Amino acid sequence: MAEQHKLARGVALVGAGMSKFGAFKGKSSRDLFVEAFNEMLASVDQPFDPNQIEALFVGNYSSDLFEGQGHLAPILASWTGLNPLPAVRVEDACASAGAAVYQGILAVASGMYDVVVVGGVEKMTDLPTEKVTDTLATAADTQFEIPAGFTFPGFYAAMATSYMHAYGATPETLMKVGIKNHNNGSLNEKAQFGAKISTLMEARKASAAKKGLPIPEWKDELEFLHDDKANPVIAWPLRLYDCSPVSDGAAVVLLVSEDLAKKFSDCPIYIAGMGQASDGALHDRKELNSIPSARLAGQKAYQMAGVGPEDIDFAEVHDCFTIAELLATEDLGFFERGTAWKAAENGETSRDGSKPINLSGGLKSKGHPVGASGVGQVVEVWKQLRGQAGERQIKRPLKYGLTHNVGGTGQTCVVHIFEKRD
Amino acid sequence: MAEQHKLARGVALVGAGMSKFGAFKGKSSRDLFVEAFNEMLASVDQPFDPNQIEALFVGNYSSDLFEGQGHLAPILASWTGLNPLPAVRVEDACASAGAAVYQGILAVASGMYDVVVVGGVEKMTDLPTEKVTDTLATAADTQFEIPAGFTFPGFYAAMATSYMHAYGATPETLMKVGIKNHNNGSLNEKAQFGAKISTLMEARKASAAKKGLPIPEWKDELEFLHDDKANPVIAWPLRLYDCSPVSDGAAVVLLVSEDLAKKFSDCPIYIAGMGQASDGALHDRKELNSIPSARLAGQKAYQMAGVGPEDIDFAEVHDCFTIAELLATEDLGFFERGTAWKAAENGETSRDGSKPINLSGGLKSKGHPVGASGVGQVVEVWKQLRGQAGERQIKRPLKYGLTHNVGGTGQTCVVHIFEKRD
Repeated sequence: MAEQHKLARGVALVGAGMSKFGAFKGKSSRDLFVEAFNEMLASVDQPFDPNQIEALFVGNYSSDLFEGQGHLAPILASWTGLNPLPAVRVEDACASAGAAVYQGILAVASGMYDVVVVGGVEKMTDLPTEKVTDTLATAADTQFEIPAGFTFPGFYAAMATSYMHAYGATPETLMKVGIKNHNNGSLNEKAQFGAKISTLMEARKASAAKKGLPIPEWKDELEFLHDDKANPVIAWPLRLYDCSPVSDGAAVVLLVSEDLAKKFSDCPIYIAGMGQASDGALHDRKELNSIPSARLAGQKAYQMAGVGPEDIDFAEVHDCFTIAELLATEDLGFFERGTAWKAAENGETSRDGSKPINLSGGLKSKGHPVGASGVGQVVEVWKQLRGQAGERQIKRPLKYGLTHNVGGTGQTCVVHIFEKRD
Repeated sequence: MAEQHKLARGVALVGAGMSKFGAFKGKSSRDLFVEAFNEMLASVDQPFDPNQIEALFVGNYSSDLFEGQGHLAPILASWTGLNPLPAVRVEDACASAGAAVYQGILAVASGMYDVVVVGGVEKMTDLPTEKVTDTLATAADTQFEIPAGFTFPGFYAAMATSYMHAYGATPETLMKVGIKNHNNGSLNEKAQFGAKISTLMEARKASAAKKGLPIPEWKDELEFLHDDKANPVIAWPLRLYDCSPVSDGAAVVLLVSEDLAKKFSDCPIYIAGMGQASDGALHDRKELNSIPSARLAGQKAYQMAGVGPEDIDFAEVHDCFTIAELLATEDLGFFERGTAWKAAENGETSRDGSKPINLSGGLKSKGHPVGASGVGQVVEVWKQLRGQAGERQIKRPLKYGLTHNVGGTGQTCVVHIFEKRD
């Protein structure tokens, strides 16, 4: 039918906020969501009456399993003063928040609403770590994959070994991705692990010295990351510092119809393109070293925006594991298949590289409250495009930022392209 | 902002199907969804290529807790051959499926898609009953309500006592609602408990006779329903036969843009109006004998459709408990506040009454696979408006059918109005 998808009207982003990501004992999804909501309200340039909001979309993976609370959307509507507005939860595992943004855009484009709030939230740290792993495993195929013993580090380890085998990357490539993202995250006050790997390394040395223990003699970050004690193998080749953390957090954005954008914002950010795709579970795929749904979602978004990968100034991609960032930058066409690892090693994805990736620190350093991450990515794009990213701001002029949010092993991928207009 | 909500383009229903509702050992959500999907495909009047479908929306309350399977949408996309299309789960507790229909309509109206599938599914019977009750309780406020000992029969019992106290209804009124819905369900081959109460009563008598036990001397259905052994109190005044069952099932519909409707269907059914609203949890409300979100969702739907309650020929309402049907028919304006119980006693809501309610048997008799029920209601409206409801078909000409789907105790309500055009 629709050869070329086109929204009935344009949609713009006019506000964005997030809670700090981290482990917050005693705070529930509600508390975190309210923090993010309030920051979003404060981010709107023009005087703005929250009564103008008409609907709430909530990305959340599983408050059911993490907090024993289902039916989260109307609760969050209550806690943000938004009820009796329509409130709905959108779920696509770790792509839940990206999928919620996607639905929020469709809702505004439909004509039904002019002003909607889209948020994402997850409260993961109330469960012990092994329970978190089991809960996340429900995002895979629990009939065919989980009984075979897979959990997510294993899935992504399989993808990593496939990629390394095919193209020649090494575990050190992955470590370099982690080092880069921690460098970025060290400039993000909202990051859960907002410290450089070198800083963490020095802290370990200082701690050993203080305790009168032998001081480890790591000559650099890579040697530290190769240390089986400091950085144990989780599922080879993935080590602890290749994995995003277990996190609590929330992020919220405000979307309006394009014609209203300037009434809310001095510098609105426009939705230029969007794409979403699904796929079978990993066991059922022909290839492990690329995520087909990401390629397709990217293609759709580029087509809608009328741009190509070369036009994207920077991107926030779904680095739930370091390998995932390499796959993402190939799937999105930033680099040819099999070459992203060289680009990463050459610094092309660093803050001052040709294609900066995960300026926020990514899921790796910023944290990964799974149902919030997709909106958290949008918050970073909002800040960068508006020149409000502080110390981590890209210095050159920016026009297009992209977000890439993956659910599971890629059963879902959602890509959005955001545009700053002159 | 938008004083009067208006979709950018119209949307029509051109196919609908459902699995049988019941308890199906060994069948998962996937199996049930595929059954419903296949029936939907077969229901489309004109030759139809499933490759025309562009997206999948899945209503589901908690496959996470019921089956240990999250990220259900792309799995169902795989099993129905729909991947790599965008697939997303929509959750609003027992209103999940209604909310999914709502999102599917917005998606088509947005211009992004011309043809979408919306389904709902729940597989509840793998858990023991007490676990099901606990799982459903997560749809309430688990910070403020569940620790106080409430589960859903208790919530609705509180609503029932409030209603009876205010207006004079009695437990017998509720029993009459159940008798009516079982009468309707006895004509629905998809119903989980598709037998009249009188039939169940006679079966009990026959069973006692066969076992040589004293044959109970119930003179009529009401006496049977008053029998504490045959129909035990669950939470006074609600007895077993006032409660909808624990169910497995799925339902699926096909939505297209209005301009394409006749290409798919000889008798498309058009979306005339829709409304959704949210509310705080029950403990935080000023009134217990009405559901504010239902009143508001109904008003929105009527306003959009340009019709009033008097124009609605019949409705499928959310009778998770018998009391809920009485509240619904007042909240929707079919009867004045405090009078629905008299209307029910007078037979006005029966199949040959002035305002037939729950011709399918309702959740009470048809079954209540929670995340499927909202789409199941739409399937009945589709059949009735097209004159395909078999023995339970309303004989007079029909123009408007309404669905009313409630999440939790009314933290969410979704109302849709469907129209048959000449």
